[in-house]
Amino acid sequence: MDVGAVVCDVFGTVVDWRTGVAREAARLLGPDVDAVAFADAWRARYRPSMEWVRSGGRPFVPLDVLHRESLPSALAEVGVAAVPDDVADELVLAWHRLDPWPDAVPGLTRLRRRFVLAPLSNGGVRLQVDLARRSGLPWDLVLGAEVVGHYKPDPEVYDSAPRLLELAPSRVLMVAAHTDDLAAARSRGLRTAYVHRPHEFGGDPVPALTDPGADLSVGSFEELATALGC
Amino acid sequence: MDVGAVVCDVFGTVVDWRTGVAREAARLLGPDVDAVAFADAWRARYRPSMEWVRSGGRPFVPLDVLHRESLPSALAEVGVAAVPDDVADELVLAWHRLDPWPDAVPGLTRLRRRFVLAPLSNGGVRLQVDLARRSGLPWDLVLGAEVVGHYKPDPEVYDSAPRLLELAPSRVLMVAAHTDDLAAARSRGLRTAYVHRPHEFGGDPVPALTDPGADLSVGSFEELATALGC
Repeated sequence: MDVGAVVCDVFGTVVDWRTGVAREAARLLGPDVDAVAFADAWRARYRPSMEWVRSGGRPFVPLDVLHRESLPSALAEVGVAAVPDDVADELVLAWHRLDPWPDAVPGLTRLRRRFVLAPLSNGGVRLQVDLARRSGLPWDLVLGAEVVGHYKPDPEVYDSAPRLLELAPSRVLMVAAHTDDLAAARSRGLRTAYVHRPHEFGGDPVPALTDPGADLSVGSFEELATALGC
Repeated sequence: MDVGAVVCDVFGTVVDWRTGVAREAARLLGPDVDAVAFADAWRARYRPSMEWVRSGGRPFVPLDVLHRESLPSALAEVGVAAVPDDVADELVLAWHRLDPWPDAVPGLTRLRRRFVLAPLSNGGVRLQVDLARRSGLPWDLVLGAEVVGHYKPDPEVYDSAPRLLELAPSRVLMVAAHTDDLAAARSRGLRTAYVHRPHEFGGDPVPALTDPGADLSVGSFEELATALGC
């Protein structure tokens, strides 16, 4: 593969959203709330909330707005009736304060020596900047949904990476822990690497250990760096 | 000033376009061409070429495309009739290979400790990534013309910084060596800092030593970092 840039899904692939959201929820909602169940309940509303934008039913709004809108029903699911506005705002910022998986920063740092490196996430621009500054994610730039006003798996998001980086699609490698994200990237001509994240959903069943459709399947960003000769 | 992000003009403000373009022109066109005169001739076509886009006369195209289109007449001005396509392509890439002024990397590195840092340039996304990777410009992300499909001084470019960084306009500080760029930023509510670059145009007269309209006028990015307490 003659790769020039590596673009990465972020939630679940680079950062551990479940542990991070649960940590912030425990801090903000107290010990009587099941913080992990709340994290799962909120995440379950992620795709449906984007679907309304993706179908053209409403104009694009950043993910923070969708998170804010889906918060009350996620709270209700764990028995919290309502929270003050300032707590709700802080909970939305939990998604800006997620820790990377342990291999992410060392692996990405190695990859950046050879490749242009960017997130290609449904999270907003500010969210990506906050995650990166908090943990030292070594992105060259921020790409993704908010830059183009579309959510993955809309083709506009995948197409934006080769367009803005002035590379053929086959020279852009998309990395994700989710086979559907990779399939959508492949349909736009990008190369794909699957990274296995068995702990993304806690104790839930693991859907796949490798992605037979991907160019590469690895267990970490460090393994990916080695596979690409970094 | 309660600043959260510092966004920077690049050509002339962060990098020395004249010396860099002349260096690449000397390499690619040989010793019989006046490389500095060629750099000036090419740069003189920069604003008119964007004007056609800004007036709505044609759809947005990245600066590389405008540079490519204005190249033949700039070459003609210094007595070069035509060059092969591969030489023309390499000349366009001269704008991706400009050196920063000596204070830029140390000053920006200090500023980044406290502030989100991004270019806000009419240069394209790939161009900014190439400049940054070449010289270690420590941007958190790339903002600017190509991200929004408008050229400065269109308001869309200035407005994109507070919007994508989720800050009030008054918490974004625009830095430039050009008073018209700063005036346009101020008209959109941004704070402004003028950095004096007496050598941008070689021996030509220097238009201003300070900008009375700006919140700050400094002689370098190091001075700016000191003024902002970094």
